[in-house]
Amino acid sequence: MDRSPDGPGPAVIAVAQVAITVGEPDANRKAAAAAVAQAVQAGARLVVLPELCDSGYVFADTDPAAEARGLAAPADGNVTLGQWRSLAAAHDLVIVGGFCELGADGRLYNSAAVVDASGTRAVYRKAHLWDKEKLVFTPGDAPPPVVDTELGRVAVMVCYDLEFPEWVRLAALDGADLIAAPVNWPAANWPAASWPAGERPAEVIKAQAAAATSGVFVAVADRCGVERGVSWISGSLIVGPDGYPLAGPVLADQPAVLTAVCELPRARDKKLAGDNDLLGDRRPELYK
Amino acid sequence: MDRSPDGPGPAVIAVAQVAITVGEPDANRKAAAAAVAQAVQAGARLVVLPELCDSGYVFADTDPAAEARGLAAPADGNVTLGQWRSLAAAHDLVIVGGFCELGADGRLYNSAAVVDASGTRAVYRKAHLWDKEKLVFTPGDAPPPVVDTELGRVAVMVCYDLEFPEWVRLAALDGADLIAAPVNWPAANWPAASWPAGERPAEVIKAQAAAATSGVFVAVADRCGVERGVSWISGSLIVGPDGYPLAGPVLADQPAVLTAVCELPRARDKKLAGDNDLLGDRRPELYK
Repeated sequence: MDRSPDGPGPAVIAVAQVAITVGEPDANRKAAAAAVAQAVQAGARLVVLPELCDSGYVFADTDPAAEARGLAAPADGNVTLGQWRSLAAAHDLVIVGGFCELGADGRLYNSAAVVDASGTRAVYRKAHLWDKEKLVFTPGDAPPPVVDTELGRVAVMVCYDLEFPEWVRLAALDGADLIAAPVNWPAANWPAASWPAGERPAEVIKAQAAAATSGVFVAVADRCGVERGVSWISGSLIVGPDGYPLAGPVLADQPAVLTAVCELPRARDKKLAGDNDLLGDRRPELYK
Repeated sequence: MDRSPDGPGPAVIAVAQVAITVGEPDANRKAAAAAVAQAVQAGARLVVLPELCDSGYVFADTDPAAEARGLAAPADGNVTLGQWRSLAAAHDLVIVGGFCELGADGRLYNSAAVVDASGTRAVYRKAHLWDKEKLVFTPGDAPPPVVDTELGRVAVMVCYDLEFPEWVRLAALDGADLIAAPVNWPAANWPAASWPAGERPAEVIKAQAAAATSGVFVAVADRCGVERGVSWISGSLIVGPDGYPLAGPVLADQPAVLTAVCELPRARDKKLAGDNDLLGDRRPELYK
């Protein structure tokens, strides 16, 4: 475990479940700022916000790409990222959140940024696009970045990405202590839940397994607020490296800020009971 | 979906949680036969038995390899596999179970076999060894076999293997409809459970995520019966391709036979809601 005695200690991690409205970026930024303020009140040093939390998600069926393009902006000089930087500087925070990016290549990306007081530390473009996103966005082709922060090493991926164990493993092998995942988890039916009574949604199960399988913290910020008839699981949660929730899942269509005290570098110890190691016991030569 | 109109239809799948005693292969075979008989009574066409269900698991600390060697036998002419073949022939079954194998190379393997009326269809050697197994067994170096049976395509892996998503994915990409997993899931504490109140053990969560992530059925046969001070999660379960349990988890230290009606070829449809496909949406070129 490469954790120095003066390494990062315990810190409050927050995930913000925010009500978002497509096409209302000012209102959405205001809602995000309010959620960040609430997290700060609870002592948070890192806040995760949902996927596409500036633009909204359910673009108009008639021409979704056109509506998305009207709401997209480059990462450089981005109003949303500027807001996050101001909040990060004012409160000594790391903020991870999703935004609708207009690339320098003229293409649209479903992106997420890691921002701290020093500015934008990383921009990640979602690599596994969901359903109609394929009509709007270009998939990213870079692995999830792992950013060394004051709290520990923070990786970011977006929504459906988290359901690909190959992607989670890449982040873990690259040294992530925490995977921060802005998501918009659509619910199949409304108002009825799409998962069996007494069960957690499969998305939550996969997030728990992602944590336990690689021994990392996972922080998922989902959204709420029915948008053009689409509802959400609203399953924001924080999972410990053993796979058990430290906070959430919320599973209610309402704004929420969840917090948990996490010592992120604890995730560097991959030992299990006995002579076992979550990463060391892999047989990569056989994974062909 | 490559499922012919006259392809396999629904069938009863069973997992047998059996009480096993190290060093008592005759008694263990008798217990396994009784569990198979119970499954047959319930209409089962496929029965999964636990890991190392002939030899037992907790070999003596003084010289575990020597005790295991005294209990191991080659796959050819194996008494345990012969019993399974007789049962399979008598009741038109597929049986998947773990046994202690003496290889032709003189080494010991923690193996599992797929047996039907025609004989031994596959022998698989556990590739991810747990804890002190490393003192006894040689790890296998072949991927999980996928056996085309009358019920559908059955893959087999053993216990800790199932916790490596790379391994599960290999089986799914090779066409598995069902992953049959003989396990011995040790519990960290006894009699207190080692998982938080209200939660399922991480092993169960990982089995559920394995199913949901690749859209396959997963059938886990755990064991019961405290052995030399080691207790077991006894978490036998059958999971559907959506990740939700069809039967179990048992989570009680007692013999149990669980059944579920499963149409295995249904697992060949990897479509999710919308324009999504569990395997087709992978980005293998990025998984380096």
